[in-house]
Amino acid sequence: MSADPATPPLGGLLEQPPSVVTAGVELFESTLRDQGVDVIAVDWRPPADDVAAELAAVAADPRTEAANRTALEHITSAEPRWTGITSAHDATGIERGQFLHAGPPITWERASGPLRGALIAAMLYEGMAETPEEAERIGERGELELSPCHEHASVGPMAGVVSPSMPMFVVENGAFGNTAHCTLNEGLGKVLRYGAYAPEVIERLRWMDQVLGPALNAGVRQLGSMDLRAIIQQAMQMGDELHNRNRAASALFVREIVPPLLEAGLEGSDLADVVRFINGNDHFFLNLGMPAAKSALDPARDLPGSSVVVAMARNGTDFGIQVSGTGDRWFTGPAAVPDGLYLGDYGADDANPDIGDSTITETGGLGGFVMAAAPAIVRFVGGQASDALDATRSMYSIAVGEHPHYQIPILEFRGSPVGIDVTRVARTGTVPAVNTGIAGKVAGTGQVGAGLVTPPIEVFVDAVRALADLAEAPAT
Amino acid sequence: MSADPATPPLGGLLEQPPSVVTAGVELFESTLRDQGVDVIAVDWRPPADDVAAELAAVAADPRTEAANRTALEHITSAEPRWTGITSAHDATGIERGQFLHAGPPITWERASGPLRGALIAAMLYEGMAETPEEAERIGERGELELSPCHEHASVGPMAGVVSPSMPMFVVENGAFGNTAHCTLNEGLGKVLRYGAYAPEVIERLRWMDQVLGPALNAGVRQLGSMDLRAIIQQAMQMGDELHNRNRAASALFVREIVPPLLEAGLEGSDLADVVRFINGNDHFFLNLGMPAAKSALDPARDLPGSSVVVAMARNGTDFGIQVSGTGDRWFTGPAAVPDGLYLGDYGADDANPDIGDSTITETGGLGGFVMAAAPAIVRFVGGQASDALDATRSMYSIAVGEHPHYQIPILEFRGSPVGIDVTRVARTGTVPAVNTGIAGKVAGTGQVGAGLVTPPIEVFVDAVRALADLAEAPAT
Repeated sequence: MSADPATPPLGGLLEQPPSVVTAGVELFESTLRDQGVDVIAVDWRPPADDVAAELAAVAADPRTEAANRTALEHITSAEPRWTGITSAHDATGIERGQFLHAGPPITWERASGPLRGALIAAMLYEGMAETPEEAERIGERGELELSPCHEHASVGPMAGVVSPSMPMFVVENGAFGNTAHCTLNEGLGKVLRYGAYAPEVIERLRWMDQVLGPALNAGVRQLGSMDLRAIIQQAMQMGDELHNRNRAASALFVREIVPPLLEAGLEGSDLADVVRFINGNDHFFLNLGMPAAKSALDPARDLPGSSVVVAMARNGTDFGIQVSGTGDRWFTGPAAVPDGLYLGDYGADDANPDIGDSTITETGGLGGFVMAAAPAIVRFVGGQASDALDATRSMYSIAVGEHPHYQIPILEFRGSPVGIDVTRVARTGTVPAVNTGIAGKVAGTGQVGAGLVTPPIEVFVDAVRALADLAEAPAT
Repeated sequence: MSADPATPPLGGLLEQPPSVVTAGVELFESTLRDQGVDVIAVDWRPPADDVAAELAAVAADPRTEAANRTALEHITSAEPRWTGITSAHDATGIERGQFLHAGPPITWERASGPLRGALIAAMLYEGMAETPEEAERIGERGELELSPCHEHASVGPMAGVVSPSMPMFVVENGAFGNTAHCTLNEGLGKVLRYGAYAPEVIERLRWMDQVLGPALNAGVRQLGSMDLRAIIQQAMQMGDELHNRNRAASALFVREIVPPLLEAGLEGSDLADVVRFINGNDHFFLNLGMPAAKSALDPARDLPGSSVVVAMARNGTDFGIQVSGTGDRWFTGPAAVPDGLYLGDYGADDANPDIGDSTITETGGLGGFVMAAAPAIVRFVGGQASDALDATRSMYSIAVGEHPHYQIPILEFRGSPVGIDVTRVARTGTVPAVNTGIAGKVAGTGQVGAGLVTPPIEVFVDAVRALADLAEAPAT
């Protein structure tokens, strides 16, 4: 190809505004965009060369395909129902001095501000300490026993701290008979799960134990049980993605629980307080959606050869995953700070790294995986409705299947992408899309924002390596 | 252009599957599609040649542009609030023997089955007749006085029959001080508004008068008032289009009314019945959304020169519209049978022509105009989510503006198309998209389905002619 003789070589290139092709490095892309440069972002990442052999070994494992199919069937055939409320002690067996927390295992020493704050709140609530300072010293002396919620058939949003006398939702998976548990949602602002421990936080926890829990338990006993799959299904047709947006699900919950609450013969003023409390919190249903997902995922555990993720969870320091074919082992990496919008005067400097078990929603094909059902969510990060569609579409590339019950209206009722396959994540470089709340990094602060977060790809790659170690060779 | 000498003339044409371009005639298009033919539908209609002079006269009227701007401002600045429940007599001034109905004026003789059935139900309810036969004779003897709801600051879904002792919602437009009224929604199945008059229908109406109405009135008094604009706004982000889908709005309504109901000191079992009744009906909010739209549109009436539609309504025989610049005059044409899905064994042969004032939602920029917010709706007619987007997009071409409060998430929160301009309808041939329920044509049947309906274009053309007659000539 020869240059036009009338134009010096490359002379035409800079006469027009530059158009730049970027690949992978988003900060570069957004900086260019901020400068008004036309940017074409290409979804390209370096090939997973360093795990090519391990990917091949897993692909050749004769058990993998069937095991992943079984995992998908187990996850999608779940019938999660809310059946009661019980104490954390009865639900999980924890005793005084024992505490559950979100994410993979961690010690007080490595715990971030909000997790320490939530543990302080729980110690005050349990009467183990009179002051936050005293509680902190108990923590520092190592006089409390920490264990992940996930290892006790439970999940906890944000810090996810559970102590023995807290009331918990009991969710039963009718298809498999297993149960999952979660504490009750405390509402917004200064709350334990975001690491706050002010007197109002403890007072609210006591009211939840003495009034809210018994009322809801009476309601659900009257009702028999509540079909959570049906609520999630409807809420997805009503703009919820069931992680950062639970407005429809919470409204449907109120609608269903009020008549039995009325018939359960509770005191009128308590009942009004209970309904007002639930109404004041568009995330009330999150603490039912999470154990619903947990109850669906647990039956997909321990399938030899399966590369399907059965838990993604963060403790505020580490992001961890568990994979069906590798048992209870956690694969962990550093938790990132979410990219989002901040409340009031808070900013990114106030943000703690990613925290909470609420990524169980994404693990179960909800949350970031069904953003297309909830375009309002992308406003949290200044995005557009089309970004929500793109996010969901890209999740199909790392999922083993589609959820027959959880459908996305705008995608012609296509089932949600479900069953994260670590081999697909490692091969494509596409990590799960995760929506999340943002906790303040200083203990006692509370929520500072909400947004999106990028899981560390190395945890998926490490899981592939572990699967490869366990892989059976194909029959020859 | 010469034919390829190697091919006989037209020889290549039929070697490939035919691809047909259709224009306007949908039945032809769908028949071809059913035969697997590739059809390119073009949105082309004959130009409105026969009203070209009238369109020019209205366009030249120096008042029209400003009047339409004022109409839009009045409609979109409305602040509809539910403030109470009162009897139809107190709300509208009707006395024993007087009945309101949906749509433009009509007589018993011309009334369709469901309208007659609803009038029979109302006569039984008011104690004017002991049996349906006796009521029918009263109708035939012309011993009842009929008047459109719209002429009494009211709207009624389907048959829209209102008798003096029925309870009605009172909706106040805070921005203009006007009020609008609507009866309470009876639920699904055999109900007066669909023309049923069995004993269960009358019994339910009595319970609504004696229990439901007083309870809701006590609740709203306790609350002060309920912001309907806020509910509609939220519901549009939750998959409702506020005509054929009111699930989110009804859930939000329950959420908001239950705490004040609890505090109003009602009997517990009545309260449970009330909540169960509302919960059992995803369309409960329709009867609040309709007067909300009516209260917003009435202040746009009587603006000289304005070509904006202030009411679209059907009485089961005629489809009628009223236009701001032509006062209280109705422009009417034949009501079409909706195209939809039928309940149980019912089919198109059982369907009554289009009926009800619920097209006030479309007139106010909701319903069919915001189908893009409610893709689940198109399943009623076997359509796809993309059809919902297309329906809304095409409504912008006949609307004078966009509603700043009613936004459509998937269209990047664009305001809903609002303010139907009869000149744009006549010029483009695009008629308003209308969602609707379908009543059985035999009196006493009830609902037989739900779907979409096409308004007769001649009513818009007639309105253009009337505006042209009234048009001022431009200053010379």
